[in-house]
Formats: sequence, structure tokens, C-alpha cells
Amino acid sequence: MTETSPWDQPRTSLFTDHYELTMLQASLHSGAAHRQCVFEAFARRLPDGRRYGVVGGTGRLLEGITKFRFTDEELSFLERTRVVNAETLDFLAGYRFSGNVFGYAEGEAYFPNSPILIVESTFAEACILETYILSVLNHDSAIASAASRMTTAANGRPCIEMGSRRTHDESAVAAARAAVIAGFSSTSNLAAGLRYGIPTVGTAAHSFTLLHDTEREAFEAQVASMGPGTSLLVDTYDVERAVRTAVEIAGDKLGAVRLDSGDLIDQAHWVRQLLDELGNENTRIMVTSDLDEYAIAALQSAPVDAYGVGTALVTGSGAPTASMVYKLVAHTDDSGEFVSVAKAAKNKASVGGRKYALRRLDERGVASHEVVGVGRRPVDDGNDRSLLQHFIVDGELKPGWIGAEGVTKARERHAASLAELPASVHRMHRGEPAIPTVYEEH
Amino acid sequence: MTETSPWDQPRTSLFTDHYELTMLQASLHSGAAHRQCVFEAFARRLPDGRRYGVVGGTGRLLEGITKFRFTDEELSFLERTRVVNAETLDFLAGYRFSGNVFGYAEGEAYFPNSPILIVESTFAEACILETYILSVLNHDSAIASAASRMTTAANGRPCIEMGSRRTHDESAVAAARAAVIAGFSSTSNLAAGLRYGIPTVGTAAHSFTLLHDTEREAFEAQVASMGPGTSLLVDTYDVERAVRTAVEIAGDKLGAVRLDSGDLIDQAHWVRQLLDELGNENTRIMVTSDLDEYAIAALQSAPVDAYGVGTALVTGSGAPTASMVYKLVAHTDDSGEFVSVAKAAKNKASVGGRKYALRRLDERGVASHEVVGVGRRPVDDGNDRSLLQHFIVDGELKPGWIGAEGVTKARERHAASLAELPASVHRMHRGEPAIPTVYEEH
Repeated sequence: MTETSPWDQPRTSLFTDHYELTMLQASLHSGAAHRQCVFEAFARRLPDGRRYGVVGGTGRLLEGITKFRFTDEELSFLERTRVVNAETLDFLAGYRFSGNVFGYAEGEAYFPNSPILIVESTFAEACILETYILSVLNHDSAIASAASRMTTAANGRPCIEMGSRRTHDESAVAAARAAVIAGFSSTSNLAAGLRYGIPTVGTAAHSFTLLHDTEREAFEAQVASMGPGTSLLVDTYDVERAVRTAVEIAGDKLGAVRLDSGDLIDQAHWVRQLLDELGNENTRIMVTSDLDEYAIAALQSAPVDAYGVGTALVTGSGAPTASMVYKLVAHTDDSGEFVSVAKAAKNKASVGGRKYALRRLDERGVASHEVVGVGRRPVDDGNDRSLLQHFIVDGELKPGWIGAEGVTKARERHAASLAELPASVHRMHRGEPAIPTVYEEH
Repeated sequence: MTETSPWDQPRTSLFTDHYELTMLQASLHSGAAHRQCVFEAFARRLPDGRRYGVVGGTGRLLEGITKFRFTDEELSFLERTRVVNAETLDFLAGYRFSGNVFGYAEGEAYFPNSPILIVESTFAEACILETYILSVLNHDSAIASAASRMTTAANGRPCIEMGSRRTHDESAVAAARAAVIAGFSSTSNLAAGLRYGIPTVGTAAHSFTLLHDTEREAFEAQVASMGPGTSLLVDTYDVERAVRTAVEIAGDKLGAVRLDSGDLIDQAHWVRQLLDELGNENTRIMVTSDLDEYAIAALQSAPVDAYGVGTALVTGSGAPTASMVYKLVAHTDDSGEFVSVAKAAKNKASVGGRKYALRRLDERGVASHEVVGVGRRPVDDGNDRSLLQHFIVDGELKPGWIGAEGVTKARERHAASLAELPASVHRMHRGEPAIPTVYEEH
């Protein structure tokens, strides 16, 4: 895809809260805008009962940061609406992030207070990225975290992302991307196919059957046009009759039947038996009716070959945002020395200081702790895995994190990260985070 | 904003599920693609316990339908990935919606089975719009529905939308738009300001205070740059000390103080008293800590002047999607006669046939029923208000529905629609839909 694709967001700078720019203005006025700062994105907690979260959105975010520019259109809007003064507009006109960004690589598991993204730059440069950074990480990580539980529950059977219709049109594309990183095999979303090279799939809906005078005519049309390997939707009228009709028309090469309503466990059993009796041992059964991780787990013993997941995936299965925050944790003072900072607000306390992070593994390679060093790297005990990657070096994006390559690598990384966690994460029941986060201060 | 703005989505055609295009291919093959069809978008139920829903997204959707085109980039992607065959690609290359779209106007209240959008065209033209239509309506209506409960709970005090960081970057813009339609006064989201002319607001976050050596220096910088009418965030360290410092620096012209943590009811009372004692009777108190409609209602008796709402708004306050579906309800047969259709699936039954809708009002003008005519208009009893608007006439968008004009009108319409409903909708407790939906068949 070229830089000029209409499917490529050309600019990200106004995905920003008004107050980021007024803070910029006031700090330019006081001069504090030029202090070197460390900002940190983290989640104080996981969604209730979850054992782990999954970092999603990093590749999308890093690409977006390179497009965080203010051109005539944005500047004239900000001037016309008097959001900021002339000095600030001048600064924005020349804005180009020149600092450093570190963070957990996409697909990595995370825990409460994991320092998921660290931005080092002047206050002016780092402050105004806040809203965009959080939008991307909060949405995509919420989806990746839910998706990971679903693919875990599916235990190797393919999961197909098909939730586009139940979320915002652009969120749907990001959700498909996040789902595939967390182990989904494919998506229904065509824009995700174009933008990220993700495989897309789909055959037909109830409307296609209803459009024809009979179910038989609909199936004949679909098989004639798409071949017998297609997937036929068999629950528009009577499932048993539909399965028999499907096999009559497509023969033993029928690719799959899809069930989208009713008691899926019961139906899967007798439809499997019926297909086998008709000689269609190789025809797969796909189910798609409002599935979430619990329904997928319940279908584990049923003869189901693939799960199509929609609403629960794109809404984060009860946790539609990852609740990450972006906090100033250190800045230089007038002497150029770094000082750690944190607000004292009662129910929202944070730990100040630049963070470093390791995943501590036991002798079998199983994760035991998330070790967060405050102000310096924790001491590696020999089995530790360093978690922070250096994504942007003095304003330059390091290669390999974005686009289709980023998605592929993140998918592999997610599988490896999950394999390293204690077995408890494979259970769907509610509990504490799979490993504790410990601080190493000095 | 011109048509070539980088903030304007130039194309919407791939916000589409793969199966819409394979259904198109198979129906072109069978010839059924050219049958005249009626599709209907509706919600089978409201989110659990909600009394009404609010239609959101219509303006955004209608504009998007005009951009639903397939140019070289989309066509070469579909060809390269073999989503559809050459005949289908030819059809898509010439695609331009030429049918009719009717529906509930944006901002209107809706109920279970209200026919929120009706699309009349050939199967080929109407089918492939499904995913995009549902994405827009499901997201924006979920946000508008939650927002309406919040502005109702706020009972005239302004609500400010500030949830951008907790949802996808583009969803945030649509959420700001939907919130304003449902009565919010403004948003923090700058892109929503540019795209829809919505007022944007914001001043400073904790990071701005932490950046400076003292809270006093931070307040001085902000007041010096933005004037005493600004809003100062007073809970970074000690609220009482911060309020006193704020008044010392800004004087009696201080615009507002903002509380973002702790017991907001208790704080609002003593901060009000303190401000009054200091001579700042005109300084407002704004609160912003994880508010939802219940927290807003609980703050009703506290001396609060404005609510900033984030996470709960952009996640639909527990209902992040409106769960609308898009169903084929009628099509022509080979003789050109319309036949009503509906699938028989157990837990997802629908009512076939073209729908018409009225809101039945009693003699005092209070809504009593949602009357849905099947196959023909219901008989107007004299106090009924017709609900279906004709948005697109033979492919041409009627003026007045999109852009800033559409938002303004939708906001007024929402207020009028809500005023018409029984008083029960103003209560936050869970219950049945405020009025029953009744079918008038013949």
C-alpha cells in the first residue's frame, strides 16, 4: 500500500484533547515546555477477574506518531477557533517528534503497572501525544486481551473475527488487526485485508437464502458460483432439511455448514452425525451465534471446527477499554537533573520515576514475576527476559514494527509470551493477575 | 471543510464484511441480485434495563453512503486476493447506490423493533451496504443512548465529553458527535471540532502541575498564559491548599476549579464553601472522575457546575453496541410482486414486510405507543407523529441531514423527542421500555 492510499489515515494530530494544546501553550509561556520529561503509559489494574492483558496497537501507534504533524488545515482550524495562541501555532507548525519511545512489544502479555510505553522527550513534544497514544493502546489492547482468552479457549481450533458490524467502522479494522495478533486466524473485514494483509473470509448470510424462492435455489446459486468447498448457512428454516439439501447439492466436497442460532452444542453433535452418515466426514461445522470465551470453552467437547466471533470480541468481552493512563513520572529541573514526580490524589496514586521491566522466569522457563525497576534496570537473575524495546530513537522509527510485518511478528510474539505464563491463564475463571508485579527501587 | 480534507474519510466501501461481496457474486450468478429488496435495520431489544434508545450516526452514515465507491485501489485488492470474480468486480466498478433510504431521524428516541433504517433497492445494491450501515448505527446509537441518560441525570448542568483516550482514535470523533446530539455541551476532541464544528474545551492535566517545581508556579503559568477565567485542576497534592493558591493567583475572576479524584460530593460542598468565603462566588466547580449517569445523578444535590464524562460515555455505559441488525424483510419474485420474508431461527425471529412507524401521543402530547405498520402505513389516530424520513431519493441525498447542520438539527430533535416521552425515562433505575411497540398488520 502506498503512502497515498485513501485507506491510510494521512494525519493523526487532531486525535487530541484540547487541553494537551493549552498545556503546551502555558508551558511554552513559562518555559517549562522545554524540560526533558519521561511519560509512562500503564494500566493500574486489569479488567475485573482477568489474569493478564495483551498489548495491542503498538504498530498502529508508531506509524501514527510519524504522521503526527500540523499542516495548514489543522493550524487554521486551531487559529480560527482560538484553541491556542500564535506562539503555540508556530511551535506546532514545526512539530516533529524527536525523542525516544520504548515499550512492550505488541502481542506481549502485561500486568498491572507494567510500563507499557515510555516516552522521553521535552514536555512540549511528549505531552501532546497523550490522547492519541492512549486511544490506540486502550482500544487495541482491550480487543487483543479479549481475543487472547478466546483463542486460548478455542484450544487450537480456528477463530474468525466477524464483529465489524457491532463497532465503529474504523475500530472494526483495528479490532480485526488486534484479534489476529492474539491468535485469530482471519477476519471478515475487507479494509483490514487491504491495510494489514490479513486473510479475509466469508460466504453468505440469511438474507441470501431469503432472497431466493427456496433454500435449495439459494444453495444451488452459491455452490454454482463459489464451488462446493463453500460454507452453507443451514439455520434459516429447518437445520436438518438444510443439511440434507446442502449435501445433495454440493456432494462430499461441501466445505462447511454454519450454525448461527439455537443450542449450538446439541446441534453440533447431531449435525456432525448427520454429515457423517451422508458421507461428508470432511465437511466442517462452523458456529457463530454471539460467542464469547465462555461459550467457546463450553463448546470444547462439541464437534465444532471453527468459531466465528463478533460482538464479544469487538467490545472487549465486558472490558471495552484497557484503562491505561499516561503519566508524567520524571522531568529535569532547572539544573538539568531528573526528578521523579507523582500526584498524591487518594484513589489514583502512581509511582514516579523512569521504569525498566523484566519478566522473571523460573528454571523451567515459566514466568513468576513482573519486575519493574524504578530509576534503573533491575538486576537480572539469569533467567529474566527484558521487556522494553526501543521503538523510536531520536525521532526515527526503528524498522520492523509497523505494517504487515509488524502484525506477523506480533502474532508470533503473543504465542511465545502466552506459552511462558503459568498454566492458570488457560482457565477462564476469574482470579488474580497470573504473576505479581514487584518494584525494585533503590 | 473541503472534500479533500485529510480529516475526511474519502472512501467507505471496504468497511464491509467479505461475505457481502460473495453474496453479491452468487446472486449475480443466479440473477437474484436484481430483485428489488427491502432491508430493515432495527434492534430486537434495548440494553438490559434501559427505557429508550437514541438514534445516532445517521448523518455520518448518509455521507458515507455517498462515498461507497470502488475505485482501482479497492478493485485491485479484491482481484488480487480473489475475494470475488471478474463479473462481480465489473459490477462494483460501476457501483453507485441508486435506491431509497428511509429512517428515524438522528436524535430520535427508539424502542425494540423500531424500524430505524429502511433501504429499498436491488439486492445487489442494498446487501453490500449492510456492514457499514450497522457499524455506524450500532456505535453511534450506543453512545447517543448512554449520553442521553447522562444529560438527563445532569438535569440542565452542562456535560462535557472527554473520553477520547479511552476509545479508538476515530471512534472518539464519532462519540463526541453522538454525545453532543444527545445534549452534551462540548467535547475535548479537536478532530470533532474540525469535522463537525462542535465546540471544544480543555485547560490542563496533572502532568502540567507536576512539570513545574511547585503547584503555585504551574497555576501562575496557566493564568498568565490563559487568563484568570481558566479552569485550574486542584487535586494534584492537597485540594484545600490548591484552592487557596488558585484564588490568590487568579483572584475573583477565576473561571473554575476541577476535581478529578476522591469523594466528589463531599469535596464539592466544602470547596464551594471555601470559594465563597474567599470571595469567589462566581468560580465554578467542575468534576471529572470516572463519572457515569448514576454518579451524575448522585451529584445532583452537590454544588457542581459541570460534569466531564469520559470512559462511561465512550463505552456506552455498559452497552458499547446498540445490537442493531439489518434484515431482508421483503423482495420481489419473478412476477415482480413483493413477498415478505423472515427467517425462522428459534432465538432470532424477525417480522417480515416493509415497515412504517408512528409515535402515538395521548391528548397531552405524551408518547404512549410505538406503532409499527407492516406492509402499509398504520392508521393515524389524530395525535400520531410519523417517524420515517426519506433520506435518499433514487440515490440522491436530500439536503439538511449531514455535516454541522445535521448535528445541530439532531440535537434539537433529540431534546424534542425526549420531552415527548413519559416522565419515567428521567429516572435512572432499570425497567421496561418507556412505551410498548405494537404492530399493526393487515
